[in-house]
Amino acid sequence: MRREASRPRRYAILADGWFANRHAKTAHGLLRYGRDEVVCVIDSSLAGRRVLEVMPQLGRDAPIVGSVREALELGPTSVLVGLAPAGGRLPEDWMRSLRAASDAGLEIVSGLHERLAPRFPGRPVWDVREPPEGIPLFSGEAFGVEPRVVLTVGTDSAIGKMTATLELERAARASGLRAEFAATGQTGVVIAGWGVCVDAVVADFAAGAAEQLVLEAARSSPDLILVEGQGALGHPAYSGVTLSLLHGSCPDCLVLCTAPEGEVFAGVPRPSPSRAARLYEEVASLVKPAPVVAVSANTRGLADAEAAEYVAAVSEETGLPAADPFRTSADPILEAVLRAPKTRARVA
Amino acid sequence: MRREASRPRRYAILADGWFANRHAKTAHGLLRYGRDEVVCVIDSSLAGRRVLEVMPQLGRDAPIVGSVREALELGPTSVLVGLAPAGGRLPEDWMRSLRAASDAGLEIVSGLHERLAPRFPGRPVWDVREPPEGIPLFSGEAFGVEPRVVLTVGTDSAIGKMTATLELERAARASGLRAEFAATGQTGVVIAGWGVCVDAVVADFAAGAAEQLVLEAARSSPDLILVEGQGALGHPAYSGVTLSLLHGSCPDCLVLCTAPEGEVFAGVPRPSPSRAARLYEEVASLVKPAPVVAVSANTRGLADAEAAEYVAAVSEETGLPAADPFRTSADPILEAVLRAPKTRARVA
Repeated sequence: MRREASRPRRYAILADGWFANRHAKTAHGLLRYGRDEVVCVIDSSLAGRRVLEVMPQLGRDAPIVGSVREALELGPTSVLVGLAPAGGRLPEDWMRSLRAASDAGLEIVSGLHERLAPRFPGRPVWDVREPPEGIPLFSGEAFGVEPRVVLTVGTDSAIGKMTATLELERAARASGLRAEFAATGQTGVVIAGWGVCVDAVVADFAAGAAEQLVLEAARSSPDLILVEGQGALGHPAYSGVTLSLLHGSCPDCLVLCTAPEGEVFAGVPRPSPSRAARLYEEVASLVKPAPVVAVSANTRGLADAEAAEYVAAVSEETGLPAADPFRTSADPILEAVLRAPKTRARVA
Repeated sequence: MRREASRPRRYAILADGWFANRHAKTAHGLLRYGRDEVVCVIDSSLAGRRVLEVMPQLGRDAPIVGSVREALELGPTSVLVGLAPAGGRLPEDWMRSLRAASDAGLEIVSGLHERLAPRFPGRPVWDVREPPEGIPLFSGEAFGVEPRVVLTVGTDSAIGKMTATLELERAARASGLRAEFAATGQTGVVIAGWGVCVDAVVADFAAGAAEQLVLEAARSSPDLILVEGQGALGHPAYSGVTLSLLHGSCPDCLVLCTAPEGEVFAGVPRPSPSRAARLYEEVASLVKPAPVVAVSANTRGLADAEAAEYVAAVSEETGLPAADPFRTSADPILEAVLRAPKTRARVA
């Protein structure tokens, strides 16, 4: 997961028929948080419109075009597969578009489970989920990193951990701090241009991957390393990945992400934020104490007054500062993070 | 991980120079617990002696021979690589022995991280760590299995979870119960002849692998499914695998494995048995309650009186029945397991 000194990308985002759909989260994430240029979005159902007309909350504009051919006129270096269907395969018409882009010399960037490199032999393909070779076992080396390490955790998966982490990074940079975003999922890795999809690593090495990520982020001696969390301790499908990150990234403190609606997986309800916070702390402290210092509340879909009420209720229930960093500001969370001391691993 | 109706194996165990070493645990496990025949052990340093002379605790005898050539005279079908070095590669002289065995038509059975099939193209090789294709995500289907599911967990890795599980299986069968051992690590899989090395599965699918294992074990409608645990909730390198098993196998109750000496990894000390038990229960209960009903105490290396004292102390500290199932009997643990009710998943 070593960061490479690559030339910056100029992206065309392929999201045909899907750009306005919430599952196009890699597309949206790259537009809102990415550092690379976005020359256009390809979505024939919205051709001729602009990103900010369709999704003003993304905060960055780009033209929307109807085809790869039109996109090529705007000089992209790379085409992003802007959809991350849960375990799904790519529709055939998207494959045709990607073939056209690849034939024109573009790099294909994909966060799909299915690897695309074997389908484009000899062509530039970045399969974002492909883990780097030779990830070692967790060693404890990251116990000793100098910067403060913050990990986002959640009461559920898909609850806003990546967004909270990226908004925290923005707030930190806005206040003059050097912050590193350590990406652990496909959208985060595309946004950052480096990182590792921890859930795609062989289970034995998942904690080692998290540790290597933190060690790599520490090389630039930032003030803060902000590690994107995954899954949830109570999510039966992904809890192993969550715990590998909790122990492997050696955080000094945690930010708990939650949301009002109790979406469930396999029928299992979410724990309350206070219960979740206590359990994350207890399990972390088997290895290295990491207090939950703030709550990031995802209030998407609520009216402003309801959102404020929900944030206040979460703060009351947990006894912690809370904010929706996307709707208002990550500053209360950042302040809590900066007040937290570095912790020491529980080593004999 | 579907069990195949394969013909039984007749093993020659390759453990040259290592048979008496504790790292030869796959060799020892197969001898003590395996159902397949063992025609001999290959260890030139012990040639001419017999297994029970060298390691009486294994409880099954076999001749020890000095070479593959001698082993072949005893009619094996398979040669087992009887060593599981931590992440290590196979020594070159072992490769020569395996080539000789393979040239003579033997199947190679290996639990090494490094896959051997590519080194013996066209020849029969069972790379035990190779996960089956197409493992699905955890679905919750195993919430509904009929048999009682028991998972062994530990205060540390390499503390006796496999042994406890296998001794529990023996005790259950001895008392007339139909018990299925669900193997999750390389030695266990060799012993059982089926299973899945959960730590070799891509992290996203580790819980799904544990669930599929339980579903497969349930097909024969046993009274008990005994799932071999891995790692430990407080072991930073392996805790993710541990939690994938804790949630994915949907246990009704847990047996906590512990040992007196505080071996550590990356400098981290073991939690006390009572703390570990409480945390396993809390984390399990996010998904499905699974009380710790007994403690399996590994007293290897202690004198009988010390061992009895240690078992009593662990029972006192946890308030649970405790026994060393290898030294004395698994019956107290089995009784506790049979008293525990089946639990229901915390589904909305």
